[in-house]
Amino acid sequence: MSEAQIHQYMIGLGQQARSASRVIARASTAQKNRALLATAEALQAASEQLQVANALDLQAGRENGLDEAMLDRLALTPARIETMLEGLRQVAALDDPVGTIRDMKFMPSGIQVGRMRVPLGVIGIIYESRPNVTVEAASLCLKSGNACILRGGSESIHSNRAIAACLQQGLAAAGLPAEVVQVVETTDRAAVGSLIAMPEFVDVIVPRGGKGLIERISRDARVPVIKHLDGICHVYVDDRADLDKAEAICVNAKTHRYGVCNAMETLLVHRSVAAALLPRLAGRYAEKGVELRGCETTRAILPQALVASEEDWHTEYLAPILSVRVVDDMDAAIEHINCYSSQHTDAMVSEDYTRARRFLAEVDSSSVMINASTRFADGFEYGLGAEIGISTDKIHARGPVGLEGLTSEKYVVFGDGHVRQ
Amino acid sequence: MSEAQIHQYMIGLGQQARSASRVIARASTAQKNRALLATAEALQAASEQLQVANALDLQAGRENGLDEAMLDRLALTPARIETMLEGLRQVAALDDPVGTIRDMKFMPSGIQVGRMRVPLGVIGIIYESRPNVTVEAASLCLKSGNACILRGGSESIHSNRAIAACLQQGLAAAGLPAEVVQVVETTDRAAVGSLIAMPEFVDVIVPRGGKGLIERISRDARVPVIKHLDGICHVYVDDRADLDKAEAICVNAKTHRYGVCNAMETLLVHRSVAAALLPRLAGRYAEKGVELRGCETTRAILPQALVASEEDWHTEYLAPILSVRVVDDMDAAIEHINCYSSQHTDAMVSEDYTRARRFLAEVDSSSVMINASTRFADGFEYGLGAEIGISTDKIHARGPVGLEGLTSEKYVVFGDGHVRQ
Repeated sequence: MSEAQIHQYMIGLGQQARSASRVIARASTAQKNRALLATAEALQAASEQLQVANALDLQAGRENGLDEAMLDRLALTPARIETMLEGLRQVAALDDPVGTIRDMKFMPSGIQVGRMRVPLGVIGIIYESRPNVTVEAASLCLKSGNACILRGGSESIHSNRAIAACLQQGLAAAGLPAEVVQVVETTDRAAVGSLIAMPEFVDVIVPRGGKGLIERISRDARVPVIKHLDGICHVYVDDRADLDKAEAICVNAKTHRYGVCNAMETLLVHRSVAAALLPRLAGRYAEKGVELRGCETTRAILPQALVASEEDWHTEYLAPILSVRVVDDMDAAIEHINCYSSQHTDAMVSEDYTRARRFLAEVDSSSVMINASTRFADGFEYGLGAEIGISTDKIHARGPVGLEGLTSEKYVVFGDGHVRQ
Repeated sequence: MSEAQIHQYMIGLGQQARSASRVIARASTAQKNRALLATAEALQAASEQLQVANALDLQAGRENGLDEAMLDRLALTPARIETMLEGLRQVAALDDPVGTIRDMKFMPSGIQVGRMRVPLGVIGIIYESRPNVTVEAASLCLKSGNACILRGGSESIHSNRAIAACLQQGLAAAGLPAEVVQVVETTDRAAVGSLIAMPEFVDVIVPRGGKGLIERISRDARVPVIKHLDGICHVYVDDRADLDKAEAICVNAKTHRYGVCNAMETLLVHRSVAAALLPRLAGRYAEKGVELRGCETTRAILPQALVASEEDWHTEYLAPILSVRVVDDMDAAIEHINCYSSQHTDAMVSEDYTRARRFLAEVDSSSVMINASTRFADGFEYGLGAEIGISTDKIHARGPVGLEGLTSEKYVVFGDGHVRQ
């Protein structure tokens, strides 16, 4: 297809999505849940076909030289298919946010005003390699009353088509239009360019993938983007910390998983407890093979640590590396965090009540924690039931985005013939 | 100044605003209120200087050929200065949204998770002619804990500078940094281009002005924009309407004020009540000099109505003109609204309970009303206490935007040494 043809094709998808969004917006909770559960049944019945389609993607991936990590993300194993089914059942079990009304109040004029939660409309999802995102994203959009247009990676096109067929069966079983969930059939990059530049048909874009993809999309989008950039997360250990809690949290935040956005990348330690805490931590980190890079004071206590450069404070390692800085007090820690943090998740370990209140108020990150591991920054851990991503934006939704983040609120007004004076 | 110099100047404002935003974000409610009330005192004391500065703008405006409507919007009369003072006192009296925590809950892991309302950071306001916007916008940003950069029209530069001086006195009296409120000193258009393209220093842009200004800014902005485009508002009179209420609402929605975004532009009438209602309304509208443009059925009942073209359904008249269409039922009305409405405010007049529920759910506008005039769509009428504008966006904030719309929510997590398993 030529670029113009692709653009026309995308406009067609957009028009159909807009039209379907009106139907799904007013679908009942029961109808939406039926579509989710019927999709789970269809996926289960099609388990073998899914694996056949996935094998085509894996084979093409190997031929195209994808690395092992990419191939792993691409693979649809029986266990992963089971996880998709479980995910669909969980989303079906979540409360439906659409139509809830809050703060209904009488005004001096006599009108009654409240706010009703409503779907955003049409959501475009752009993602890479992992085909299970197709089900996750579609199920969250559907439950929140939105139509979606899914643009997966070209490397997973066969898997995505097979999954889309099951989603279509689910929608049909619930009497919902097929265009509630549409998968972009072309793997041409121009399709992304069109998708992010149709504000008349697409209300918001959620990119899921590497930083490069997200930066490119944010730069070029003509539609609002709910985006997730870096997770440069900090733990600050205060001199009023319980050092046993500090040790447990610092080990967990760094070593529970390395390649995740809510892992600690920089440890800040109050000067008074550095000599007591750092050697304990260094032993634990050495066991796990974590490389330490420290400021001058850190290296005076831990000579084995490498020198941390200015660039280290700016770096999301996503690896067994940790930068460590000794600070004079909580104010210095907050200053460091507000300067270098990516405003994703930052934590303090302290038993001090007043400092806890100040840390919560003064650290401007999407999750701020006291005496807990940064690894908790997650939609499931926060009780959202599911997440479509973690937003590092400041407007609309910050932090883990679940069903509520895929909706907004309109005003509803009840009167009895009221007119404005 | 050259374009490069202006860009450097704007970056300087941005850096200062970012730095000041950290201070105002954690200022106490008392401190913020003190700044607001001290500004009111300073404006009152400077009332004569304000009028002298304003006279310079008015004189320049006349020389530059501004029309009477523009000159009227530009004028700072003693009554308008009094309104500014009253506005400041009202904002001081509003509840402070910053720091409120909702939905604090224990999770199965043992952590406690809630959501804390926080300022957005730095807000850029771009507006035209009316210098009182300087005070309104600054007071709302300040109370919601945000720093702001204000870019008023070149035609009101003297007035804005005089007002800014009073705002500076207010901030100083409360011990807050001057850079919490900054007025762009250059009238060069390049300053706007810089302001909307500094995501590192500006978190959101609120343009207030004509559609052309807002479209231009939305197109070029590299920062999220809370925007207000058209208000093509509808009233649908159902066959189950109380026609007395319908008459009152239709007259009020169209004729209370013409040049406002929440005025009715299109009237939809159920076929069964058209013959009873339209002649009554036509008489009332004739008294007020409202021109009617109708569909064929309307013109069969009201031969004096002009022919409504397709373009009429798309038009925000902001004038004593009303387009009228007779529809078969509520579904046809909703279809018309979802096709032509600008999703600002739409109302139904009906006594039917089930239809009221459906209209509320199915009309996708920022305000949806039953038996009330569209003219109520307003921050004051909704009890927000003030408004920085009315958003026609779908993400973040829809409808009238008050203090809450200038904030977002972050997650706060309390633990006791909790780590993720």
